[in-house]
Amino acid sequence: MTKPVGALKGADNNYHFTLWSPHADNVQVIIKGEEAARTMERDAYGYWHSNDGNGVTAGSKYKFLLNGEHKLPDPASMSQPDGVHEWSEVVDHDFDWTDENWQPAPLSDLIIYELHVGTFTEKGTFEAIIDRIDHLQALGINAIEIMPIAQFPGSRNWGYDGVYPFAAQNSYGGVSKLKMLVDKFHQAGIAVILDVVYNHMGPEGNYLSLFGPYFTEKYNTPWGAALNFDDSYSDHIRNFFLQNALMWLKEFHIDGLRLDAVHAIMDNGPVHLLKELSLKVDGLEKETGKPYILIAESDMNDVKVISDYSKGGYGLEAQWTDDFHHAVHTLITGELDGYYSDYGQIAHLAKSFKQGFIYDGIYSNFRNKLVGTDPSNNASHQFVVCIQNHDQVGNRMTGDRLPSIVSYEKLKLAAGTMLISPFVPMLFMGEEYGEDQPFQYFVHHGDPALVKAVQEGRSKEFDSFKWQGEVPDPQSENTFRNSKLNWDFKSQQEKDTLFKFYKYLIHLRKEGAFDLFKSQEIITEVMEDKKLLKIA
Amino acid sequence: MTKPVGALKGADNNYHFTLWSPHADNVQVIIKGEEAARTMERDAYGYWHSNDGNGVTAGSKYKFLLNGEHKLPDPASMSQPDGVHEWSEVVDHDFDWTDENWQPAPLSDLIIYELHVGTFTEKGTFEAIIDRIDHLQALGINAIEIMPIAQFPGSRNWGYDGVYPFAAQNSYGGVSKLKMLVDKFHQAGIAVILDVVYNHMGPEGNYLSLFGPYFTEKYNTPWGAALNFDDSYSDHIRNFFLQNALMWLKEFHIDGLRLDAVHAIMDNGPVHLLKELSLKVDGLEKETGKPYILIAESDMNDVKVISDYSKGGYGLEAQWTDDFHHAVHTLITGELDGYYSDYGQIAHLAKSFKQGFIYDGIYSNFRNKLVGTDPSNNASHQFVVCIQNHDQVGNRMTGDRLPSIVSYEKLKLAAGTMLISPFVPMLFMGEEYGEDQPFQYFVHHGDPALVKAVQEGRSKEFDSFKWQGEVPDPQSENTFRNSKLNWDFKSQQEKDTLFKFYKYLIHLRKEGAFDLFKSQEIITEVMEDKKLLKIA
Repeated sequence: MTKPVGALKGADNNYHFTLWSPHADNVQVIIKGEEAARTMERDAYGYWHSNDGNGVTAGSKYKFLLNGEHKLPDPASMSQPDGVHEWSEVVDHDFDWTDENWQPAPLSDLIIYELHVGTFTEKGTFEAIIDRIDHLQALGINAIEIMPIAQFPGSRNWGYDGVYPFAAQNSYGGVSKLKMLVDKFHQAGIAVILDVVYNHMGPEGNYLSLFGPYFTEKYNTPWGAALNFDDSYSDHIRNFFLQNALMWLKEFHIDGLRLDAVHAIMDNGPVHLLKELSLKVDGLEKETGKPYILIAESDMNDVKVISDYSKGGYGLEAQWTDDFHHAVHTLITGELDGYYSDYGQIAHLAKSFKQGFIYDGIYSNFRNKLVGTDPSNNASHQFVVCIQNHDQVGNRMTGDRLPSIVSYEKLKLAAGTMLISPFVPMLFMGEEYGEDQPFQYFVHHGDPALVKAVQEGRSKEFDSFKWQGEVPDPQSENTFRNSKLNWDFKSQQEKDTLFKFYKYLIHLRKEGAFDLFKSQEIITEVMEDKKLLKIA
Repeated sequence: MTKPVGALKGADNNYHFTLWSPHADNVQVIIKGEEAARTMERDAYGYWHSNDGNGVTAGSKYKFLLNGEHKLPDPASMSQPDGVHEWSEVVDHDFDWTDENWQPAPLSDLIIYELHVGTFTEKGTFEAIIDRIDHLQALGINAIEIMPIAQFPGSRNWGYDGVYPFAAQNSYGGVSKLKMLVDKFHQAGIAVILDVVYNHMGPEGNYLSLFGPYFTEKYNTPWGAALNFDDSYSDHIRNFFLQNALMWLKEFHIDGLRLDAVHAIMDNGPVHLLKELSLKVDGLEKETGKPYILIAESDMNDVKVISDYSKGGYGLEAQWTDDFHHAVHTLITGELDGYYSDYGQIAHLAKSFKQGFIYDGIYSNFRNKLVGTDPSNNASHQFVVCIQNHDQVGNRMTGDRLPSIVSYEKLKLAAGTMLISPFVPMLFMGEEYGEDQPFQYFVHHGDPALVKAVQEGRSKEFDSFKWQGEVPDPQSENTFRNSKLNWDFKSQQEKDTLFKFYKYLIHLRKEGAFDLFKSQEIITEVMEDKKLLKIA
């Protein structure tokens, strides 16, 4: 089931609307500035089409009118210039691309740099990121991974509260600036991976249930009812998100997607959404001649996600490997609270350095169950590892980064462990120079009740940890501002030296200095007493 | 995680108790007739063991005392002589088996006969079934499939309300009579398949949640919270049911299990419960040298269930194939209500006769989604087909069987279609002589509120069908009595002739007369106008 949705340019060069709303008796489209709403016609599957595209051009603003009653933005809106509750805007995807010959580095050579648009720079926009290309080139990374940019409420958010998956956040600069960013990065030899959220929708500005059965009560998720990927009508919700993925790759020249928390994508149908996505992206690769990378965030340690179709796998290219982070983190910090209680030994690090997964079918005392599968039949470049990321930093009570917790020498040790490993390393913005500003949890909701719920929920989240002190107020602008990078690192000797250390290790890695770890069996010697691990 | 549970014979020939109750502060076992409760000790995983087995023998009755507060039967009780709320009884599994050399027919040669213990005979017991072996031998079937016999509330139930999976229903005759039945059937050359329910527990006498997190709120099922097969502590619930499956095969010499509604076994863990079951049964096969058959009831048409492990499958031997039934049923009855609306054409039957699944990835208008997968890489004997079964008869409003709806000639046509097909045919008790007593839905609950809920629920169930009239009262003993077979068929000519027709077709099938359909491609010619299907 493949069906483009949203405002789409027709053969007549006008824009026509397609909206799925199977139970609506009547759907009309209102063009801002026009008195009468335009009629739409329903097809057999519940998609409504507007035939009259007269005068509808890029920049036209519109809403849908359901049953003459609800006046709503388009779920597939590609632009929300005035935020999540207001008019949708018609977008022209034409752009003067200069990256015709661009090819990203192969996955096995990738060094990823995760960044959050709002806090990476002072301005907090797509455009401002471009000014940092020199820095990133100097560092040597060859891919950035942008935290979610789908339109979210307000102007401050990690991105996981997005409610318009097709719309690039207005306060970041919207569609054209995101394309400019991608184009510039490609010119600079750096791939762009986008973090997308297909496991839930944000709580504010989410009108999906008025349009149709986007959610199912079959499953309870941390965010309530699950997105409907296998219940009645699910093919249309699947189509919505598959179209979304393809849009980023096709229209924005994005090189890969990082799929948020795939363990919360509830789908027990015959073809898992991730497999269907992977198959669709295979098709696009044939069409464009470019390779695309799909990376899952998964807490399951289940190789099904990254295995071949022939083995019953979903065929994704890679997945995050939290075990590696936790092994390093517990050893250098000594923290053993919460989920860190499952780690803390040199033997854990030894196992993770060899094969990524520590939990490969063994019992987790924290989760109270057997966790994981044997990863030995998967290539090392299918595992993305880090020593910091937005979650592991930002989901600490005060969002404190490693430099606030461990010594400078330990920072270097951790960096070295990651960068010589056989896996795909991923840095978190600022890590390369030991940024010590925190990365805290922030939102900018408009609904006071929701703000209160988020504030209270945030406090409860740390029950299994022993952290002391105040939880920063997620809604406060200060929390957001505190989380911005401080780019003044060159003047601080330790920071500058650390940057040079990262730079040098990345250089060595790209030269192939650590490739032996990828191509032959790793021999480890574990000395728990001495807190020593020998790797050969 | 493999852990026997319940009352188990120790090396000292006394019985010792093992109970999983991870959150209990204290567990004791009370032996009926003794004044003091005996102490039990907890292991690291929350299993409680009684060391003192002194004087505990087969026939001893016992309950567990949780936290000095709840006095409860054993969830793993192998005998509930006084029903679901009363004492559990220690069982000795010794039995004088005479089936040492027994081997069932291979799956591809199987002709299954589904029966319900309570209504198959006037007495409604395991023992009374033995008296009908002559009839079944004469008919020529080589396997019976017994509807669930796990202890349920009261004395009348289809079996899907069982609450003690390890206990053979007391009113049917309990453990020893079930073993006698199996032994006699093996002597008669007939395999015994048992229907087991691992997707939910019955509503009355279900004390599981007092013992531990047997259920998870992750999933909502038609019966409420799901059995916990992938959440915290799930390995212990998995163990409970895996031990159960192994018990039937090992201690009762059961030849195979029919797994009720596997689509409602919610498990998104790394190894699906069905795959783990299949692996465990593989292990048992090596131990005993006997083949066991696992047959799923599945509404997913997903070959994952019956495919090899190497393809990501669960490795079960076969699955029910409702499409075949629905194709035949709609054509001979003209009924097109409810889920039958997805069928009704000769082309449906043609497709199902060739490959079992009609819904092999196509859109179902009744379910409003794409349904199924391509079955062409699976062997025909992996699909079990029928023209009547307990569900398709019993879940009609008045439980009316085919002879009450269609002509005698159509009965023969339907029987012929099933018995010449390349699949494993399954008859429903009485079908072979055109039984026209209904098979209605009956229960015998003790809780008045539950009785009322079942009565009301039953009435609502037929909303999408046009059936007229009264829904028989599920709680009434008459409903149960009405559903018993009337064995007086030899005196009625049409019935006796139909019996001979089945007998002859079964004979021909066993002679290999229809084997060509299994070994080469089936050519069909569909003539919708003439309601004609040619098969070659």
